[in-house]
Amino acid sequence: MSNLIPPHGKEEKLMPLMLEGDALQAEITKAEGLKKLTITTRETSDLIMMGIGAFTPLTGFMTKADWQGVCDKFLMADGTFWPIPITLSTDDEDVKEGDEVALVDVETGTTIATMQISEKYTIDKEHECKAVFTTTDTEHPGVAKVMAQGKYNLAGPVKVISESYYPEEFKGLYQWPSESRKIFEDLGWRRVAALQLRNPMHRSHEFLAKIAVEVMDGVYIHQLVGKLKPGDIPADVRVRAIQALVDNWFVQGTVVQGGYPMEMRYAGPREALLHATFRQNYGCSHMIIGRDHAGVGDYYGPFDAQKIFNEIPEGGLKCENLNIDWTFHCYKCGGMASMRTCPHGKEDRLLLSGTMVRKTLSEGGDLPAEFSRPEVVAILKEYYGSLDEKVEIKLHGAATGDVKK
Amino acid sequence: MSNLIPPHGKEEKLMPLMLEGDALQAEITKAEGLKKLTITTRETSDLIMMGIGAFTPLTGFMTKADWQGVCDKFLMADGTFWPIPITLSTDDEDVKEGDEVALVDVETGTTIATMQISEKYTIDKEHECKAVFTTTDTEHPGVAKVMAQGKYNLAGPVKVISESYYPEEFKGLYQWPSESRKIFEDLGWRRVAALQLRNPMHRSHEFLAKIAVEVMDGVYIHQLVGKLKPGDIPADVRVRAIQALVDNWFVQGTVVQGGYPMEMRYAGPREALLHATFRQNYGCSHMIIGRDHAGVGDYYGPFDAQKIFNEIPEGGLKCENLNIDWTFHCYKCGGMASMRTCPHGKEDRLLLSGTMVRKTLSEGGDLPAEFSRPEVVAILKEYYGSLDEKVEIKLHGAATGDVKK
Repeated sequence: MSNLIPPHGKEEKLMPLMLEGDALQAEITKAEGLKKLTITTRETSDLIMMGIGAFTPLTGFMTKADWQGVCDKFLMADGTFWPIPITLSTDDEDVKEGDEVALVDVETGTTIATMQISEKYTIDKEHECKAVFTTTDTEHPGVAKVMAQGKYNLAGPVKVISESYYPEEFKGLYQWPSESRKIFEDLGWRRVAALQLRNPMHRSHEFLAKIAVEVMDGVYIHQLVGKLKPGDIPADVRVRAIQALVDNWFVQGTVVQGGYPMEMRYAGPREALLHATFRQNYGCSHMIIGRDHAGVGDYYGPFDAQKIFNEIPEGGLKCENLNIDWTFHCYKCGGMASMRTCPHGKEDRLLLSGTMVRKTLSEGGDLPAEFSRPEVVAILKEYYGSLDEKVEIKLHGAATGDVKK
Repeated sequence: MSNLIPPHGKEEKLMPLMLEGDALQAEITKAEGLKKLTITTRETSDLIMMGIGAFTPLTGFMTKADWQGVCDKFLMADGTFWPIPITLSTDDEDVKEGDEVALVDVETGTTIATMQISEKYTIDKEHECKAVFTTTDTEHPGVAKVMAQGKYNLAGPVKVISESYYPEEFKGLYQWPSESRKIFEDLGWRRVAALQLRNPMHRSHEFLAKIAVEVMDGVYIHQLVGKLKPGDIPADVRVRAIQALVDNWFVQGTVVQGGYPMEMRYAGPREALLHATFRQNYGCSHMIIGRDHAGVGDYYGPFDAQKIFNEIPEGGLKCENLNIDWTFHCYKCGGMASMRTCPHGKEDRLLLSGTMVRKTLSEGGDLPAEFSRPEVVAILKEYYGSLDEKVEIKLHGAATGDVKK
C-alpha cells in the first residue's frame, strides 16, 4: 500500500482519460469520421492533463453547474473541490447537445480527444474573471484568454487519444502522475513538496527547494512545459539549466524532476490552489507557495496565494501549502535568507530585478555567485548569446524594452 | 477559541498541580506537620513540571501499572501516551500506603509538594533502564540515576506548593505552559516548533531555528534551566548568549524564548518523545529533532530520536517531530546547509568539535564568523575568561581534559 497522499477526489484513485491499446486505435479511427472542433492551446493542454490523470477526478470539460460552483464556492456540482473552471468554448452555432466531436489542437492540427457533448451553455465571462482573476482587465493574460473564448461552452466526457508532442519533446521530464508516484514510492517518500517552476532556478529557488528538502522526505521540482508567454526562456534551455543545478548543488535522492503540460493562467491565488490540486495527483503532500505565486503584474498581494488556502471549504484539498517568504542572499546574514529570517536592511541584501538579470546575461556578463550558480549562468549566457543582436526583454506585467547584446 | 494544539491527554486541557491562594497557604501550613521525605533534584524538577502543567495530564508520580505500561508500551494504565516513567523512590521502610508526606528537595531543603501515597512498590530497575535507555551501563548518566534510586517507588497524587528558585532566578524566561500559550495566541500562531536547548546557540542551532521559522508560524526557543552536568556552561551565561543571538539575528516576532525546569535524562529517543510531549502542553505543534537529540556518548544512533516517532502507538502524541539533519556551514555551498542539502565533502565544511570550541574560547581566541555570531562569542569568551586558569573540559561521554587558559 502506498504511503503517499491519495489522488484528489472522492474515489481517491487516479483516473487518466487517455485510451490505450485497441480502444485507443478504435477511437483514433472513429475520430477521423467525426465533426472536428478546433480548440485553443489552453484547452489542448487541459485535455492532456485529463488524459494523463493530472486533473483527476475530472471526466471531461465542466458543465454549467460545475462552472458556477467552481466560480462561487470552489466546488463542482458533486461537491468536489476545484479552484478554476476547466471549460471548452466554441462559436460554432451548429454543434449541439448529443453530438460527438473530435477536438483538434489549433496549433499542431493534432486530434487530441473525442467528446460527447452533454451540454451547450453560455456563461457570464466577467463573472468568471472576477471570481478567478479578481479582475476583468484584459491586460491580464488570463482574463484576455477567457474574454476571447467562444460564445458557448461545451460540457461532456472526453476520451483522450493523443498527448501531442510532449512525450517526445520532453522525454525523461514529462511525467504522468502514476510515474511520479512510482518514483516517490521507490524512494520511500511520504511527505513530498512540489516546487512549481516556469523559469530557470537561481539561488532563491534553490533555497526554496532546500528548505523543503530539510523538512520533507523530498522535493518534486515540477516544471511547466506547456505554452509560455513570448520573451520567456524556452523550456529546453530552462530544463538544461535546472538539470545542471540539480546535478551539482543537490544531494542525490532528495529531489525528483518532472514536467507537466498545463498552460499558465496567471490567476495568482486561485492558480496556486490549482497547482496544489493537481500536485496531489502527482503524489505531493505539500505545495511550496512563495511570494506572488502564479501572479502577474500587480493584480495580487504578494501573499494572497498563501492566504487563500485558509479560505477554501474545509477538507476540500488534502495537499497542504508550504508557505515560504521572499528569499535572497544577505551578505550580513552570510547566506540565503528570507524576510522571515533576515533582520537586516535592503542594503545588506543582493536583490536583482528580472530586467537586470536578463540585461547582464544578454551583454555576456556574469551574475554574482550569491545570486546564481555558475553552471546555471553558463547555460543562460549561451542562450542569450545565441539570440539576435537585439533581445526583446519582457517582464510579467511590466514594460517591454530592448537591450543590446 | 485557541488555534493551538490542545494539551496532552484525553481531557485536552492544562492541569497544573500547583495550588493557589488560600488552598496554597493551607497546604503549606499542613505540610509543616507532615512526615518529610527527601527527594532528588530530578524528582523535584518533575514535581515542578507537574506543578506548572507541563506534565499534563499527570496527577502525581506513577503507579506500578503506569510504570510497566510506559516501559513496555509507551502507555500509562489508562491508555495515555507517556514515554518515560515519572517516578518517586525512597529507601524509607516506614512510609506506607495511605500516608500523606511532604516532599523536600535534597539540595535546597524546600518543601515542594505534599503527596498522598496510594501505592508502595518495587521495580526491576534494569528493566526500566533497558526500556528507556536501551542500556544498563551505569556510565550513562540517566542509567546511573535510576540505578541509584531507592528500593521502593511511591505512587500517588501530589499537591505542588513551591516552584523553588525558578521563578526568581529565571525571571522572564521561566514559563508555565499557560503563559507560552497566551504569547503564541497573541502572536496569532498556530504552527509552532519547539527548539530544545541546553547549550549556547551557535550558527548550526540558529539554522535549525531558522528552517523552522521559514515553514512555521514561529519557533519556541525553549531552554532547560534544570540541573546540568558539571562542566556545562551555566544557565545564566547561556541565557545571555541566546538573548544576544535572538536580538541581533532573528526577525522580531518569529521566535519566543522560554525556560523549563526539567533535568536531562539523556535518554536519546525516549527523551525526544518526552520533549515533544511536554512541548505539546506548552502549545507547540512540532518538536525540532536534530542529530543525536538528547543523546549522550555513543548509546544512540544519530537519527534514532527521529525514527522513534514512527514506532509509538498511533495517535498517542499529537505534537509532531520536525526532523532536521546535521547542520554546518559549507564554504562551497556558500552558507549553512545540512547533510540533506550539501552535496560536498568534509573538506568544504566548517566542522569544529566541542573540545576545540571550548579550547579556543578558553584561550581567548575567536570562533569563525561562519561558526558563531560575534555577540555570542563575546559572551562566551567573557565567561571562559572569568574561570580559573585551568578549565576543566567535559564532553558528553568523551574524555575529560585540561586546557590552559
